[in-house]
Parts: sequence; C-alpha cells; structure tokens
Amino acid sequence: MLVLITYDVNTETESGKRRLRKVAKQCENYGQRVQNSVFECIMDSAKCREVKEILVGLVDLERDSLRFYYLGNKYQSKVEHFGAKQTYSMEDTLII
Amino acid sequence: MLVLITYDVNTETESGKRRLRKVAKQCENYGQRVQNSVFECIMDSAKCREVKEILVGLVDLERDSLRFYYLGNKYQSKVEHFGAKQTYSMEDTLII
Repeated sequence: MLVLITYDVNTETESGKRRLRKVAKQCENYGQRVQNSVFECIMDSAKCREVKEILVGLVDLERDSLRFYYLGNKYQSKVEHFGAKQTYSMEDTLII
Repeated sequence: MLVLITYDVNTETESGKRRLRKVAKQCENYGQRVQNSVFECIMDSAKCREVKEILVGLVDLERDSLRFYYLGNKYQSKVEHFGAKQTYSMEDTLII
C-alpha cells in the first residue's frame, strides 16, 4: 500500500534540527522523498508499524507534528503532481 | 471527499516568497492547514478543479512542486496524527 508520511519538526533549537535530520533519514530508508517534508512509501502493514514506531520515538510529541495518510493499493489514480520534481539530498533537511 | 494538498515553493527569491504566501492563502480558502505546507480540504470535484486551477496558476512550474492526494469519502480511517497540533497563521508562511 501507499503510505504518505508528512512532518513538521520544530527546528528552533539545535535538538530540533537534529530531530529533523533523524526523521528525514529514517523516512529515506522507507520511501521516496517527493517534497521537503513529504515522503511516499510503498510498504506493507508490518513495515508501516515499524516506521511509525521509529518516527514516533524520534519526534518531540510536544513540539513536532507527524501525519500518516493511507492511500491503499490502488493509489496510482490518487496522486497528482504539478511542477518541479526536485531531487533531495540529506543536506536539504538543514534548510527548511 | 478529502483532498490533501502539499507544496514546496522555492523561496530563494522575493517572487518565490510572494508565491508561497499566495499559495498558502488560497489553500486556506479551501481547507484546513495541518502542517506548514500540508492542507486537508473537504471538497467536491468541482471545488477541487477550481483550487487546482488557481494553484497551478500561482506556482512556478519550473521551480515549485504541488501535489494532490485524493483520499475519497471514507477518509476518517486513512489519516493518523502524532504529536503537536499547531495552529498556523499566515505569518508562518514566511519562515519555511
């Protein structure tokens, strides 16, 4: 199934910046970055539970926001893109 | 239906910052901001076409990225949230 992961990590502090890097890095292990803080992951329920547990453990639940959207198996018609397809490196996570 | 709108607007230039503000403002007219550049909109197909046309007209297709995710009518079980529920004002769009 397609799982969309989106996050806002509060980067006002150094520890926030570290959290952001860690969250992005983990997401990269599970899916494709399509925007700065949006990842599309093709995974089964077990993998999804795994990444969810990891990410929930990484973020500061008081300060950061983490959202999962479940788009099922027939997701091809459920996604539409306009504009630039940027490629992201880990460096980009520093300049949100 | 629930339509998720996500965007990355390239804010390296002043005109980019203006585009970002305009995109965010339009999205606020159609839905609920759930993260910095993620909006959830409950709308029918006609409204969706309308906002799509507006947003595609606002962004720079060479530099910005705009994505739509269609989560259908039974969307309640398709969204999961962890952490802070931030409230956003238009001011936030300046500091992405």
